[in-house]
Amino acid sequence: MEIDNMLNQQGAWLRGIGKESDIVISSRIRLARNIAGFPFVNRATEKECLGIIESFENAIKRIIQPETAFYLNLQKLSTVDRYYLLERQLISQDFVESTKPRAVLIDRNEDFSIMVNEEDHLRLQAMTSGLDLEKVWACINLLDDKIANELSYAFDEKLGYLTACPTNTGTGIRVSVMLHLPGLVETREIERVFRSLQKINLAVRGTFGEGSKALGDFYQISNQITLGRSEEELIAQIAEVIPCILKYERKSRSVLMERANDSLMDRCFRAMGILQTARTISAEESMNLLSSVRLGINMGIINDISCSQANDLLLHLQPAHLQKLAKKELNKDAENHFRADYLRQKINLNVQS
Amino acid sequence: MEIDNMLNQQGAWLRGIGKESDIVISSRIRLARNIAGFPFVNRATEKECLGIIESFENAIKRIIQPETAFYLNLQKLSTVDRYYLLERQLISQDFVESTKPRAVLIDRNEDFSIMVNEEDHLRLQAMTSGLDLEKVWACINLLDDKIANELSYAFDEKLGYLTACPTNTGTGIRVSVMLHLPGLVETREIERVFRSLQKINLAVRGTFGEGSKALGDFYQISNQITLGRSEEELIAQIAEVIPCILKYERKSRSVLMERANDSLMDRCFRAMGILQTARTISAEESMNLLSSVRLGINMGIINDISCSQANDLLLHLQPAHLQKLAKKELNKDAENHFRADYLRQKINLNVQS
Repeated sequence: MEIDNMLNQQGAWLRGIGKESDIVISSRIRLARNIAGFPFVNRATEKECLGIIESFENAIKRIIQPETAFYLNLQKLSTVDRYYLLERQLISQDFVESTKPRAVLIDRNEDFSIMVNEEDHLRLQAMTSGLDLEKVWACINLLDDKIANELSYAFDEKLGYLTACPTNTGTGIRVSVMLHLPGLVETREIERVFRSLQKINLAVRGTFGEGSKALGDFYQISNQITLGRSEEELIAQIAEVIPCILKYERKSRSVLMERANDSLMDRCFRAMGILQTARTISAEESMNLLSSVRLGINMGIINDISCSQANDLLLHLQPAHLQKLAKKELNKDAENHFRADYLRQKINLNVQS
Repeated sequence: MEIDNMLNQQGAWLRGIGKESDIVISSRIRLARNIAGFPFVNRATEKECLGIIESFENAIKRIIQPETAFYLNLQKLSTVDRYYLLERQLISQDFVESTKPRAVLIDRNEDFSIMVNEEDHLRLQAMTSGLDLEKVWACINLLDDKIANELSYAFDEKLGYLTACPTNTGTGIRVSVMLHLPGLVETREIERVFRSLQKINLAVRGTFGEGSKALGDFYQISNQITLGRSEEELIAQIAEVIPCILKYERKSRSVLMERANDSLMDRCFRAMGILQTARTISAEESMNLLSSVRLGINMGIINDISCSQANDLLLHLQPAHLQKLAKKELNKDAENHFRADYLRQKINLNVQS
């Protein structure tokens, strides 16, 4: 099955390569689009939802070759498979839980995906590892143009793209950059940075874990405003602010290195020690420890594994991924046990190789 | 200096050998004695205190050869050296902190020690690793008889040995057994066991750490009553109750092995992982982790180091021991750093050998 072929690849956003990849995990842009002539998804009947999927399928056939991307009917996927796609950031939490007829088109390299019947008829997203909003914008913009040639988007001359939620109206764009900020967290400077970002209407949220509780010091920064500015302006705003955050994070790391080298080394080495010896470990704990390991790698403290290998673990230690690897459903105890086994096997392989 | 020669030996009570040494760390008996013709220490002038020391020194010369034991004037010892003797359980906390003229005679094998001018004029104690109260009683009883031949003890036909505190009057004996009870702590049965012991007038307290907070699941069980029963009866009471506690502890360990083998293994291996990787670690944390390691060794989970090696670490990771090893005074940060370095060096040596 096509979905299983992805299991051993890292996903575009976690390759650990690209510009500033010691801090910037990934760059991502999504566009919200609706097809003219259909009601918004929350008002659409089941039949209308199926009509939306059919229209999209017909259009996409003429644009994208089956060698490039594959198509999944969400209603036919198991719960584990839906969460597996969520963990790979190919679909959203709402999309996992919805009961509407819905589908997703997934690029085989995971460079882009298109959700059909999420909050809007279409949610196009493109992503890459490291900091490269230009590349991501080029990809998503081309895809958007191609689809616009085949389908009639709901568009208003004055308002721009019409969307189910007014917060997306206008450009329908959300630009987001995922950052690993253990330095700012450790020096407690992060709240100050976040307040500054909120003042210029940028949103900050944790990448892993529920709600605002950020696991493993991974944060996503994105625009909140979509109306009244061009896509390029909105991208430029984020592109301008990221170097400042990188500067602050690097400064925090230097401070840690100078002021508390002992406790920094302690944190990094202990994290490796626990990951290599635990017999049972939760997703939360492993995520937090991997954050310390990733920091250690980027500060030259840990040499046993690479940043890309640490990213790989971040992906595969998530619950649905572990169940795919185990090829069976796991209860929490079994999952935590399997996670520890997988970790020891992977880290010891890495340390030896 | 004689005190330094002990640094690389384990002390009689921590050799990790003897009967039941998977649970019983050590057996110890102390006797409180006072010399007739002198006031109790808390009422004695400095001159009288010196007189007590002189009387004892003169007596001991005729009993014990210098090859067997050595003599230390506490007022001439540094703070670190006094705490070093406390950590080896050769002297008491009160004896460390007192400002009176006082001395201690220490057997070179650390099988016995005699404090002069602690609460009583003489506090004789003998100890051994594992469970062997008979051996310890034979040793201390012989020593007591020899001293009684040379010195006149304060003794009342009706009350027995007179002591500074009435709780010691009569036999002046305190019998104590140090136990490692991680099973009972983990299964939360320990409170129940302690309540039963208190009902039969046995006292329970932590071995390491201040007050009642037991570090590393190490507990000391001792008699509270000294009057109205013979020494043999008091020893027999403890000797009878210990096998019951051992039975409960072993049962708890079996329960852990069956019910929660996963989390038991996890606890033991993580402890090894942290001890092998930490760059800074407190006495408290290392004590608690060594407790898990010791449990793992005794349950066949950990094979890298022996019980005796773990006991050795318990002794040497204490603050004053580390300062003796470092050959300099260490502030808390330096001490925690040095402890982690020492641990990694020792454990890695053990793992390799």
